[in-house]
Amino acid sequence: MGKGEETRQAILERAAGLASRIGLEGVTIGRLADELDLSKSGLFAHFNSKEALQVQTLRFAAQAFIDRVIRPALKAPRGEPRLRALFKGWLAWARADVMKGGCVFVAAATELDDRDGPAREELVKQQRGWLETIATVARTGVSEGHFKAELDVEQFAHDLNGVMLAYHHARRLLRDPQADARARSAFEALVAAARRQ
Amino acid sequence: MGKGEETRQAILERAAGLASRIGLEGVTIGRLADELDLSKSGLFAHFNSKEALQVQTLRFAAQAFIDRVIRPALKAPRGEPRLRALFKGWLAWARADVMKGGCVFVAAATELDDRDGPAREELVKQQRGWLETIATVARTGVSEGHFKAELDVEQFAHDLNGVMLAYHHARRLLRDPQADARARSAFEALVAAARRQ
Repeated sequence: MGKGEETRQAILERAAGLASRIGLEGVTIGRLADELDLSKSGLFAHFNSKEALQVQTLRFAAQAFIDRVIRPALKAPRGEPRLRALFKGWLAWARADVMKGGCVFVAAATELDDRDGPAREELVKQQRGWLETIATVARTGVSEGHFKAELDVEQFAHDLNGVMLAYHHARRLLRDPQADARARSAFEALVAAARRQ
Repeated sequence: MGKGEETRQAILERAAGLASRIGLEGVTIGRLADELDLSKSGLFAHFNSKEALQVQTLRFAAQAFIDRVIRPALKAPRGEPRLRALFKGWLAWARADVMKGGCVFVAAATELDDRDGPAREELVKQQRGWLETIATVARTGVSEGHFKAELDVEQFAHDLNGVMLAYHHARRLLRDPQADARARSAFEALVAAARRQ
């Protein structure tokens, strides 16, 4: 990784943290320049526009999510163990230090749902891909015989997304000390229902 | 209702619609004055400050939610029928014309979770009250014998909140044509699990 690429990554890490706290709309070249004590012209050289910066921030966050959540989970055995690894990594992600404002994707989802443009398109593509990943892992649970044959894996992915959104809500907004326990309990209920014939 | 109060309600209805689209932070006295073609000084006379306006907007939306979702549901028989009425009203609320940007509370939840102040406090109080209402209705399901005696009604309320957050995500962000069907399916699975001995 060259020096320019290193700088770019450091900028994007800061941008992702900022987006998780104040929203993606708050991630502007001016604001980042202030926070990082860099010149605005230097940042422009890296990103060209606010829109490009926002898309790159989402891509950086998605790559971090792949590295920290998806890739490690794929090392677990197919089926239920892999699904559990995915969920465990997802919970850890939502609590990670870099995301001081909680999961950047959750914050961006309600922020961008009424806006059109490249940042929204990027987020939708990512979120669809992530739901497909969950569905694929759930499908390995069926083929391994852990889950019932008729399991609707897309519904399962949708429901697991709901478990994580409720977790974010309970932990970040309500500051509910039971948020973790509630999320685990909801996950176990989903898995139990996926097993049940 | 006097003329002053009528004007105030009309302003707050517009403010709630705006909050659902662009977020509560976008609801400023200046922006509302532009949209409603009123003078800023006139709006100041109603609300005094941006913070007071945001709190009043949340209270207006909460009152509308009580009138349109909670009160009609309480007319249904206790237990499962009342819970179904509540869920049906909630879905309709999330699709209501006035909330062009989807449920104002869902949007505000991720927006305010990193901010302190009166608007956040108001929202947290409302959301806790709403979760308690769901739990109370679920409890009538236990006392009527529709649900199992050991049902964790707070967990049930938390899980139902997740169903609605996933619905919002699928419908608003992903524009998933199956969003409604997914939400209904998730609701039926929750109710079936609440019944199961």
